[in-house]
Amino acid sequence: MTARDTAIVAAFEALSALLGPRFSRSESDRALHGRSESAFPEMPPDAVVYPESTDEVAQIARICHRAGLPMIGWGAGTSLEGHAIAPRGGVTVDFSRMNKVLQIAPEDMVAIVQPGITREELNTELRATGLFFPVDPGANASIGGMASTRASGTTAVRYGTMRANVLGLEVVLADGRVIRTGTRAPKSSTGYDLTALFVGAEGTLGLITELTVRLHGQPEAIRSAVCAFDDMAGAVNAVIATIQSGIPMARIEFVDRAAAAVFNAGAGTDWPDAPHLMLEFHGSEQAVAEQTARFAEIAADFGGQGFRWAEKPEDRTALWTMRHNTYRTAMMQFRDRDPLTTDICVPISRLAEAVEETAAEIAASGIPGPIVGHVGDGNFHALLLPRKGDAEEWGRAQDLAANMAKRALRLGGTVSGEHGIGMGKTKYMALEHGEAWQVMGAIKAALDPEGLMNPGKLLPGN
Amino acid sequence: MTARDTAIVAAFEALSALLGPRFSRSESDRALHGRSESAFPEMPPDAVVYPESTDEVAQIARICHRAGLPMIGWGAGTSLEGHAIAPRGGVTVDFSRMNKVLQIAPEDMVAIVQPGITREELNTELRATGLFFPVDPGANASIGGMASTRASGTTAVRYGTMRANVLGLEVVLADGRVIRTGTRAPKSSTGYDLTALFVGAEGTLGLITELTVRLHGQPEAIRSAVCAFDDMAGAVNAVIATIQSGIPMARIEFVDRAAAAVFNAGAGTDWPDAPHLMLEFHGSEQAVAEQTARFAEIAADFGGQGFRWAEKPEDRTALWTMRHNTYRTAMMQFRDRDPLTTDICVPISRLAEAVEETAAEIAASGIPGPIVGHVGDGNFHALLLPRKGDAEEWGRAQDLAANMAKRALRLGGTVSGEHGIGMGKTKYMALEHGEAWQVMGAIKAALDPEGLMNPGKLLPGN
Repeated sequence: MTARDTAIVAAFEALSALLGPRFSRSESDRALHGRSESAFPEMPPDAVVYPESTDEVAQIARICHRAGLPMIGWGAGTSLEGHAIAPRGGVTVDFSRMNKVLQIAPEDMVAIVQPGITREELNTELRATGLFFPVDPGANASIGGMASTRASGTTAVRYGTMRANVLGLEVVLADGRVIRTGTRAPKSSTGYDLTALFVGAEGTLGLITELTVRLHGQPEAIRSAVCAFDDMAGAVNAVIATIQSGIPMARIEFVDRAAAAVFNAGAGTDWPDAPHLMLEFHGSEQAVAEQTARFAEIAADFGGQGFRWAEKPEDRTALWTMRHNTYRTAMMQFRDRDPLTTDICVPISRLAEAVEETAAEIAASGIPGPIVGHVGDGNFHALLLPRKGDAEEWGRAQDLAANMAKRALRLGGTVSGEHGIGMGKTKYMALEHGEAWQVMGAIKAALDPEGLMNPGKLLPGN
Repeated sequence: MTARDTAIVAAFEALSALLGPRFSRSESDRALHGRSESAFPEMPPDAVVYPESTDEVAQIARICHRAGLPMIGWGAGTSLEGHAIAPRGGVTVDFSRMNKVLQIAPEDMVAIVQPGITREELNTELRATGLFFPVDPGANASIGGMASTRASGTTAVRYGTMRANVLGLEVVLADGRVIRTGTRAPKSSTGYDLTALFVGAEGTLGLITELTVRLHGQPEAIRSAVCAFDDMAGAVNAVIATIQSGIPMARIEFVDRAAAAVFNAGAGTDWPDAPHLMLEFHGSEQAVAEQTARFAEIAADFGGQGFRWAEKPEDRTALWTMRHNTYRTAMMQFRDRDPLTTDICVPISRLAEAVEETAAEIAASGIPGPIVGHVGDGNFHALLLPRKGDAEEWGRAQDLAANMAKRALRLGGTVSGEHGIGMGKTKYMALEHGEAWQVMGAIKAALDPEGLMNPGKLLPGN
C-alpha cells in the first residue's frame, strides 16, 4: 500500500469507529450517491456517511482532511447539474438524518433548521404558525441543497431566491473548523457577507450544517388561474408588461404550446392548443382583487383569454403539482427520448427575444423541446428531447443548449437562473464571468487549499 | 533613499504623468481626505487622485501595486467609522469625477452608474422615469460608498439594504485587474456571489468603478405621519406588532423623548414631550388607505395618539430632512459636547429590551444620548454626547457604546446595522464572528495578498 492508501484505510476505520452503521461502503449506498437526475454517468463516492450532528460533521471533515479525501454534501439528490455526484471519489456526507427544525421564532419570522429537511417537511411543520417558507424549486429538495445551489423556482418573482431567504448559516470548513455567519437581526453591516458567499457555492467551500431562514406570513387570500394566449409573443409580452407595471405577482409561469400539450396528454387537462400563463396572486382580499383586475386588463391587451380560476385550495395544489411534474409527465410521454434540461435567465426586457429565438431554433431542429419558465424573473427552461441512443440528435440537442446559454449572455443574462453549474456548465463560466471566475478560484484556494470540498464542480481548473 | 522610497517617487511621477492636475499632493487635499465625520484623528493619505474612467483606476492600481502603496476609495466622505481615512498613508482614489449615470434601463428597472454619483443626484436623474433608487442612509452619500458599507437607512424596512439593491459591479482589484460581477438578469445561479462579497467589503477587496442598481416604481400614493406614544415601551411594541402583522411599511422610525426635544428646540417642531414614531406608507391609493387604517389600529392598542399627517410633498420632504439632520441639529444644541455615534441591530422580538435597557443605562449615566432608529429593521442609534475635553465622560460614553454592542450580540443581533466596521468597530469583530472573522481574513489575503486595499480597516491583524 502507498502512504496515501494507508491514510485512506485509517480514515475509513476512524469514520467507522465514529459512526458505526452510519458509515457505509456498500455498493448500493455508493451507487445511489453516484447518480443524479440528469444524464451524467454514474460517479460513486468511496463511502457514504450519515451524520446526526454538527460535531460529527466536523469530525468527519477532520478525518477526511487528514487523509486528503474529497467531501461531497448530499441533500435530497434532486439537483440537475450533477452537483452531488463524486467524480473524484471520496466521502459523500448524506444529511438525511440532520433533518430537524431546531427552532421556529414566529416573532422574528425565522426558522433555524438542519440542512437535510426538505422544503415540504419544513412547510408542514410551519402550518400552524401562520407562516411559510416560500422558495419552491418544484422538486422536494432539501433546504441545505437549495441554499447550496441558490435555488429559486415559481415564487421567487415575489419572495426572492435562496439569496434573499437565508439569513445565517453554520458551516463546517474543509479542515473541520465550524463557523457561523449572519445573525437573526434583519440586516448587518459587519464585514464580508459570508452567508451570501456560501449560498450558491455548491458545497465547494464547506458543508452547511444549520440554516437560519426567513419565513413569510401566509397570505390572507390566494387566487390562482390559467390564461391562454393567441401566440407566444402575446403571452411573453403580457409578462413583461405585468412585471414592469409593478403588480406583485406571487407566481407567473409561461407554458408554451408544446408544454400545454404535455399537460393535456399526461395530466388530464383540456387546455386549448395555445401558449399559457399560470398565475398566482397573494395578499389581502382587497389587494388580490386589485391585482387580479389589473392583470386581467394587461392580459386582454395582449390577447389573453379564457381565464380558468382554481378557487379551492385543492385545485390550486393540483395546478402547481402539475406544473412541478412537467419533467416527469413529459418523460412518461417521450419514453424513447433522453432529457436534456436547460435553464437560462435574461433581463425582463429581452425575454420575448430570448424565448422566441429559442423556440424557433428548437422548432427548426425537429427535436421536441417544450418550454416552461419562471418568466417573471426572465428565467425559462426548454426540455430538449433527443432520441435515445441517437448520438447525432444528442449532439444537436447539446448545440441547442449551448446556443441558449450564449443567447442568454448576448442578451445581458446568465447561463443559469437556478439550476447552478455543477459538472454541467463549467464550460460557460469563463464566457459569463471572465477574470471573475479566477477570483472565485482564488477564494476557493483560500478556504480549501487542498481542494477537498466537492471537487470537479463549478471552479476553474476542475 | 531606500528602494521603497525610490519606488514611491516613481509611482508618484507615474500618477502625475497619467493624471496631470488630477494627481495632488497638496496639504489641503491630503488633509481633507484624512478627516471623517467622526472623532478619529486626522490620518491623511500621501496623495489624492481623481480618476475619470475605469481604465484610469486600473492604471492607478497597477502603479500603486508596483510600489506597494495603499489605495483608499473615497466617495462623499460621509461614513461614520473612519472608512475612508488613511492610517497607513497611500493614495486616496476620490471618485467625485466618476459621477455619471451611464444608463437607465426603465424596462429592466435598473440603472448603471459610476461610484461617485450621490443618491440624491441619481434620484434627480431618475425623476422623469417614474422610478427611484430607494436606499436612503440620510447623508447624501455616494452610491459607491453606500455599496461599500452596505448602507441602508429609513427605507430598508420596505426596499432592503444595498445588499438587495446592487445587482452587479465592475471592480478594479489591487493588482489592476478589472472584473465584472452579476448580470442584468434578476437572478443567477452561476457561482460565488461576488457582488454580495464586494458589497460591504469597505473597499478592502477592490475599488468599485461601476454599479448596476435596482430601481423601484415611484409609488402612486405616499402618506407620512408622526404619532406620539405615552411611553417608550408603547412605541417600540407598536413597531414590533406592525412588522409582525406584515404591513409593508415604507418607513417606521423611532424617536425617543430626548430626540423629540432636539427637534423641538432646533427644527421648529412643537411635538409633545413624548416618544414618537415617524411613518411612511407607499402603494396604490387603496393600499395606502388600507395600510394606514391597519397601522392606526395597532398604534391605538399601544397608546399611540395625535397623528400628524404630512399631506403635501413639501411637508413630507421637510419631515424626512429633519429626521436626516438629527445629528447636525443635536450638535448645534450641544456645542460643549463631542458626538459618539452608535449603531446596533437586533431581532425584532428583542427590540423593546434592547432600546429600554440602552435608554435606562444612558439615563443613569447622566450623559445626554438621544435615540433614533430604523426600528422596523431592529436597528437604532444613540447619539452619546460626553462633555468636550472631559476624558472621564468620554470614557464612560465609550463604555455605554461597548455595552450597546455587547447587548446586541447577547440578544442575537449585530454590532452594526448599517454604519459598518471601518476603524471604529474592529474591536467587536471577533466577538460577533469568532472564527468566521479569520475566514474573512483568508479571503482578503487571497484577493489582496499585499494588503494594499484600504488597510487598517475591518479585518483581523489590522
